[in-house]
Order: sequence, then structure tokens, then C-alpha cells
Amino acid sequence: MPAEIIDGKRIAAEIRAEVANRVSKMNMSPGLATIIVGNRTDSATYVRMKHKACEECGLVSFHHPLPEDVEQKTVIELIQKLNADERVHGILVQLPLPKQCNEEQVLGAVDIKKDVDGFHPVNIGRLAMKNREPMHVPCTPKGCIELLKRSNVQIHGKEAVILGRSNIVGLPISLLLLKNNATVTICHSGTPDMAAQTKKADIVVAAIGSAGMVKKDWIKPGAVLIDVGINSVPDETRKRGYRLVGDIDTKACEEVAGMITPVPGGVGPMTIAMLLQNCVTAAERTIES
Amino acid sequence: MPAEIIDGKRIAAEIRAEVANRVSKMNMSPGLATIIVGNRTDSATYVRMKHKACEECGLVSFHHPLPEDVEQKTVIELIQKLNADERVHGILVQLPLPKQCNEEQVLGAVDIKKDVDGFHPVNIGRLAMKNREPMHVPCTPKGCIELLKRSNVQIHGKEAVILGRSNIVGLPISLLLLKNNATVTICHSGTPDMAAQTKKADIVVAAIGSAGMVKKDWIKPGAVLIDVGINSVPDETRKRGYRLVGDIDTKACEEVAGMITPVPGGVGPMTIAMLLQNCVTAAERTIES
Ligand SMILES: NC(=O)C1=CN([C@@H]2O[C@H](COP(=O)(O)OP(=O)(O)OC[C@H]3O[C@@H](n4cnc5c(N)ncnc54)[C@H](OP(=O)(O)O)[C@@H]3O)[C@@H](O)[C@H]2O)C=CC1
Ligand SMILES: NC(=O)C1=CN([C@@H]2O[C@H](COP(=O)(O)OP(=O)(O)OC[C@H]3O[C@@H](n4cnc5c(N)ncnc54)[C@H](OP(=O)(O)O)[C@@H]3O)[C@@H](O)[C@H]2O)C=CC1
Repeated sequence: MPAEIIDGKRIAAEIRAEVANRVSKMNMSPGLATIIVGNRTDSATYVRMKHKACEECGLVSFHHPLPEDVEQKTVIELIQKLNADERVHGILVQLPLPKQCNEEQVLGAVDIKKDVDGFHPVNIGRLAMKNREPMHVPCTPKGCIELLKRSNVQIHGKEAVILGRSNIVGLPISLLLLKNNATVTICHSGTPDMAAQTKKADIVVAAIGSAGMVKKDWIKPGAVLIDVGINSVPDETRKRGYRLVGDIDTKACEEVAGMITPVPGGVGPMTIAMLLQNCVTAAERTIES
Repeated sequence: MPAEIIDGKRIAAEIRAEVANRVSKMNMSPGLATIIVGNRTDSATYVRMKHKACEECGLVSFHHPLPEDVEQKTVIELIQKLNADERVHGILVQLPLPKQCNEEQVLGAVDIKKDVDGFHPVNIGRLAMKNREPMHVPCTPKGCIELLKRSNVQIHGKEAVILGRSNIVGLPISLLLLKNNATVTICHSGTPDMAAQTKKADIVVAAIGSAGMVKKDWIKPGAVLIDVGINSVPDETRKRGYRLVGDIDTKACEEVAGMITPVPGGVGPMTIAMLLQNCVTAAERTIES
């Protein structure tokens, strides 16, 4: 039996509808402020998608483009202004930043209550710690957990193997799976035999950025596979000359896995849905307090 | 061939001598402030040992006992005073705290530069994150890594299985082993079969608080075993009626392991040695800056 496909697009749409519903019950519009430094076209595309999603769900967004050569001081002053601005409930600094801006110092300047990307070290620290809860959980990792939960995958007591340990994906996913009581194994470029690790896993999360690296014979029959990777590979049959694939050799792995997320249409759409969710939660908290 | 015993007492003495040597080269005495709330005899003993160790290595210590029913506000005001006190380079709040004191809020009040226990969420967050470094690393976990390094155990590329995920031991040890490029598996009370995990490990760290739970047939031949557990078991042959044992069934595991830390005399002595190291580092940083 081929694996069940986890439809991230459908689940993300479901969550966006929930978000729109929560917004419709508020006497205000939750606000997201975005900061881009420089002219990267990929960053511009991501941020444009986020603004569009905000609009569709009734959130307002405020965009703050800054020149490529802006001083770090100026970025931090802007963040401080946004921290104090009552119309702004979430602040998103699009990464990567140019060299003259220290990522740690810039992200550390965001008020943890408005840190809807969940990258502030206090939020990561609380995510790591038992009996502590961050104000916000990073969006892509949160989206992966949400996909598992809405597909009725049990996490507690299961063996989860995570490929990748980046600050924005692999590490926070590992910490979230641990908080949900999986036995967690974290792999990375120093792992000599990743296949030996994934073979015993009930849940595999691939976040390495290497097209189709995870093969069919790496997978335990019935395992749940979450593919975070987004890699573009040349494809002459497409007008634009390439197509996007994940870190998992999807076609082949479908034959053994129990469930699998496609690329595109799996984890991808969840990231923005979780960002909207974090913003609305931040706005609701200001009403409650 | 029986396992090599990792002599924590000897290594800790070595580190204390290094600390004393660093202190002797300074024109000042590094200062450690300790806070105890209430009258727990175990807490009093631990703090007394820390003060004694400070004295032996040329550090000064300042003790601040507070009554069991002290308000949290008072504890935090004291911490703020110590944060501002130039004679104090390290602040240690002995845990556990009584109910009326919120551990997170109290520990979060310590200046991260003086957080020689490494429990501030910013320090834990930085410990978790790639390319970030905490101001201080928690003492017992740091002591475990130090034991491995000074015993010439390679960590990079090895498979490490950690039993336990507490904020003060299991979790930070896991994060440190990951930073040192081990492939890391974290087990806990939700892990259905811990033996299956430890059997594949090159390095096992046991930090569960369960006397002799790790058995001989859990261990891969030649594995390195770090026993953090301290458990008292009844023993009528001893004057005090009990003895201390670790989480590992040492006698039996010695027959298969490559190296093993004894209890007592393994990880135990390292905790205070690392505290002294953190304090001296904090003091040296004030001179540099
Ligand atoms: N919304 C979404 O769906 C998102 C998708 N992504 C995608 O997820 C993937 C990962 O992103 P990100 O975490 O930011 O990437 P990074 O490059 O920051 O991290 C990659 C991680 O994978 C590890 N790794 C890389 N190559 C190998 C290999 N051959 N074998 C073993 N481990 C390896 C690295 O190990 P080491 O630490 O040792 O270097 C590192 O931990 C990318 O394809 C990215 O496009 C990212 C963000 C959001
Ligand atoms: N200097 C030193 O040598 C120090 C020694 N210690 C000793 O280390 C040990 C651990 O201390 P600490 O981390 O503070 O203890 P905690 O009780 O805070 O944490 C114990 C951890 O072990 C897990 N655990 C407990 N029982 C089992 C079991 N039967 N099977 C699987 N997992 C289990 C728990 O899982 P879950 O999270 O699911 O509850 C938890 O993560 C103790 O013996 C303590 O005395 C501690 C500090 C310093």
C-alpha cells in the first residue's frame, strides 16, 4: 500500500480559516511588522507572500525595507520603535542579514512577546527547557508538529530521527518532538551513517537541504516522513527550467512509508500559517492583559 | 579486559590547581555570591563545600542565607544588588527554591555574565543554538564533557545516548555533545526501551536518578559510560546505614565497557571544579573589558 500523503496545503488552509475566524472576533486588527535589509529577491518574495496572507486573514502589515548598507544601530532602533508601537503585535526580521548586521544582536533586540518567528535566545532557551514555554515557537518547526497532530500521528513514546540541526529548523523541531515525549535522535554532517539512524525511526524529519538524499532503504516500513527540504533541480520540461524537490526521494519512499509530506505542498504552506497563528496569539494576549 | 576507570577526583584536583594558578596571576580575588533560601540540610552542605573549594583556590565567597518564607521580591532585589556589586563575579542560587519563589523568574534575574551556573534561559538558548556561545555552561554537564576530553575520548562522529533530559543535567549535556558533533539520542521516562538505545551507543550518559538501572547487557563492548546519578541505597555494613551508587550497575558494566566513571569519585567532584572555573573566567572577563 503506498503511503498516505499529508496534504499540507489543505491543513494550512484550515489553519488560515481558523486564524481569520479568531481575527473576526477581535475589535482590532493584529499587526505584523516586517523588516528586510537589502535587495535579495528571494527575501522579497517570502515577505510579499507573508503580507498577502496577512491581508487575506484580516491582519494588517507594516513593511520596513532598509538599504543593504544600513548600520546595525539603525536596524535595532527601528526594532525598538516597533517594540513600542501598539499597532504592531509581531515583528519579523527576514533572514539572512548582510554582514555588518550581527544576527544574534538584531534578533535579540525584538521584544520576546512580539518575536513571532521564535528566534530570540530566550524563546529558544524556554523551548529547550522542561516545564518552560516560549512566548512563540519558530514557524516551520511548529508547522511540522501541527502536520503530525492533525494527521493523528502519535508522537509520545515514538522514535524520532531528525536530519539537520540548524537554529531555524532542525534544532527547534528536535526540541519540540522531545517536549512531545518522543525519543529524539539528532543527525548532522558529523553523523557517519544517517541511514542506520533513520532505519529505526517511527518519525523522520529531513531538514538538510540536499535533494532526494533520503532513500527508500533508509526507511522503516510504516514510518511517517516529514520533508522540510526545498531544493531546486534543473528540469527542462518546465518552463522556468527547474522544479522544487525535498530532501526525501519521495516517489521511492512512498512505497515503504506510512505517511509522507510532499514537496511542494507539505511543510512549505505551514510556515506562513504558523506565522499568522503566532501574530493573532500575540494580539489576543495584549487584549487579555 | 575490565573498563578503564575515569578518575574524576584526580581530574577535578588537576582543574582546581589550574584555577588556583589563574587566580594567583590576578591582581584581585574572584568573588562568588551564594544564595540559599530556607533550611534544607542538603543545600547547606552543597553550599558549604562550594565555599570551602573557593577558599582553597583563592576565591572569596559571600554567603546570603534567606528565610524559608522570604518573598520572591526580596530574593530578586538581592540578586540585583549582587549584579551591581563589583566584588561579585559569580552568583549562585542554590536550588530547589520554596514554592513562593518562581524558579524561572529568580534565575532569570541573574546577570548572564554572572550566571556561573549557566541556568539563565539566554545561556541555555545560546547553548542550544549553532554558532552561539553561552556566557557560562552548566557545571555538571560541562564536567562530563571535560572528563571525556581529558580522557582523550573522541566525541565528534560518535553516537551518544543520554538518559534523562532535566534542565540542569540531561538536556544541557545533550546540547553540549551535539555542539561537539556527536549524533545525539535523548531518552526519558517516555522512552519505551532504553536498553535498545544504549546498546548502539559509543558514549552513554546516565542522569535519571535510579540506582544501578543501566545493566551490563545494555552496553556495547568498549563503550564509554558517564554516570551522573547519585542515589543512596541502604547498607548496614556502613556506619551511616547507606551508601551512594550511580545510575549504572558499575561492577557488571565494567566487564564490557571501555571506560567508566565511578560513583562516588567520577562526575561528582567535577561539578564544583567547573563552578570555580566559571567564576574565574567571569572575573578574568571583567579585567579584559
Ligand atoms: N518553509 C519551509 O518549508 C522551509 C524549508 N527550509 C528548507 O529546509 C532545508 C534545511 O534548511 P536549513 O535548516 O535552514 O539549512 P542549513 O543549511 O542551515 O542546515 C542544514 C543542516 O543539515 C545538515 N546537513 C547538511 N548536509 C548534510 C549531509 N549531507 N548529511 C548530513 N547532514 C547534513 C547540516 O549539518 P551541520 O550542522 O553539521 O552543518 C545542518 O545541520 C533547506 O532545503 C531549506 O530550503 C528551510 C526553512 C523553511
Ligand atoms: N554533581 C553531580 O554529580 C550531580 C548529580 N545529579 C544526580 O543525577 C541524577 C539526575 O538528576 P536530575 O537530572 O536533577 O534529575 P531529575 O529527576 O530532574 O530528572 C531525571 C530525568 O530522568 C528521567 N527518568 C527518571 N526515571 C526514569 C526511568 N525509570 N526511565 C527513563 N527515564 C527516567 C526523567 O524523565 P522525564 O523527563 O520524562 O520525567 C528526567 O528527564 C540524580 O541521581 C542526581 O542526584 C544531579 C546533579 C548534579
